Amino acid sequence: MATILFGKPIQEKMKERLVERVKALSFAASLAIIQIGNLSDSNTYVRQKKLLGEKIGVSVVHHALPKEVKIEEIKMLIQSLNNDKSVHGVILQLPLPPSLDSSELLDTISPRKDADALTSYHVKRLLEGNKKTLLPATARGVLALLDAYNISVSGKRVVVVGRSALVGKPIALALLNRDATVTICHSKTTNLDDITKTADIVIVAIGKPRFFTRNFFREGQVVVDVGINEAPGSKLEEEIGGRMLVGDVYFEEVKGVVSAISPTPGGVGPMTVASLFENLLDLIEANQA
Amino acid sequence: MATILFGKPIQEKMKERLVERVKALSFAASLAIIQIGNLSDSNTYVRQKKLLGEKIGVSVVHHALPKEVKIEEIKMLIQSLNNDKSVHGVILQLPLPPSLDSSELLDTISPRKDADALTSYHVKRLLEGNKKTLLPATARGVLALLDAYNISVSGKRVVVVGRSALVGKPIALALLNRDATVTICHSKTTNLDDITKTADIVIVAIGKPRFFTRNFFREGQVVVDVGINEAPGSKLEEEIGGRMLVGDVYFEEVKGVVSAISPTPGGVGPMTVASLFENLLDLIEANQA
Repeated sequence: MATILFGKPIQEKMKERLVERVKALSFAASLAIIQIGNLSDSNTYVRQKKLLGEKIGVSVVHHALPKEVKIEEIKMLIQSLNNDKSVHGVILQLPLPPSLDSSELLDTISPRKDADALTSYHVKRLLEGNKKTLLPATARGVLALLDAYNISVSGKRVVVVGRSALVGKPIALALLNRDATVTICHSKTTNLDDITKTADIVIVAIGKPRFFTRNFFREGQVVVDVGINEAPGSKLEEEIGGRMLVGDVYFEEVKGVVSAISPTPGGVGPMTVASLFENLLDLIEANQA
Repeated sequence: MATILFGKPIQEKMKERLVERVKALSFAASLAIIQIGNLSDSNTYVRQKKLLGEKIGVSVVHHALPKEVKIEEIKMLIQSLNNDKSVHGVILQLPLPPSLDSSELLDTISPRKDADALTSYHVKRLLEGNKKTLLPATARGVLALLDAYNISVSGKRVVVVGRSALVGKPIALALLNRDATVTICHSKTTNLDDITKTADIVIVAIGKPRFFTRNFFREGQVVVDVGINEAPGSKLEEEIGGRMLVGDVYFEEVKGVVSAISPTPGGVGPMTVASLFENLLDLIEANQA
């Protein structure tokens, strides 16, 4: 039987540590989340961040702007948050409406408050292999999940499927900085199932519900599923916030093949939210030093 | 017999086009090269850049600073070059002496004059998959060499050996942005020869003379050798600037196995120098627009 890489119990331990770090501060820690528009996925993620903030004693301030907002207004808001000493982290909930340039907006955030580690400053340090740099929350969450289950990546062959700037590429670079041999696959990859089978560890983040059936895997592999997808109409095991969620992996089928696999929900998701707050505390502590 | 991917004739065509672009300007184009210390490799590269600049009508100004120079002095020089309207590109010849933080210094260069595309601004755009962004000269040179010989990378399996922030990682990201399936290997990779054999295209950049013998390859592959190494004492075919140069690949041995291979010297090297000037002209034209 495969080991199930549950994220929730690991998140509990991370939360205990976060509570201690928040208590050790001489001021109230605060995270600002800017959300543009009203995507239901984004609403869910913002709610999860608020909930976790409450539990660990970080004030999470949600700035909800209409999707028609002008880019200059968002920039002005970010600038004012950059300058506000009572705010310690600023994140822009992605994706943005297509009319907005997320790259430009992200770079308006001060690197000192960049809790998602998506500004140029942090991206360059990641590329340079700086081991002290912050990682985007999902990448940090994936590594934390592997660490918690004592799965080393050094010298291992890892296949990452998905090449987004938010998830796939940062995960690949973070693994590379930990001495994994990394292959990045995507929609234009041919014979994907042959390539995933060459890996010790397969990490998938493509946003296609249950795309990865048992045919993509072999015994002995570790599978980490970053995908969180709504799957209306299919036979589902879990319901969260009124929506049915499944991963990119066909969990029920694949768990009988591989040696370890993360579930969705309850796998990478909880790690990502906790990792965001670890980033926030890292920034606060670094800025105090 | 393998096709030899000679860079010199391709460089000649690139130079012709560069000459036209320089002539079309209403002012004299100028590139500033800052060199710290006196490494003999760096001296060679600076000389090659000066020579090519002369040939195409770009003035190359060499700022040679002693290796004991203080970081603040280098920053002041970069700032003054950033502000000098007669200077259109500023590059820092790498590597720097180990006491200097190259990441910090590179980011002092204005992205508008960053002809090596190594500032945070360009690195982030590369990670984001922005197809209009400048590439570091070596990455651009490798792609230009493949293009010149009509070797498409889309959908191909490419193995990049070497994970430096200057060469290996930018090449991998640039290939990924062109829809290649990319594997990045390095010193901690196990069974490297098995992995290189899975590739359609192998690109090596590790700086170890003739490390890649025929055992790393199989027939039908394309091999691009980015390495330029001094190989004292070995039996050598070419002599440049008084030093004996070989690549990371054992060219004489491997050319009998694969279907195409770049030589060293005379392969990627000439492409890289010409690509630097293409970057410079791209910056000038973009800043005029």
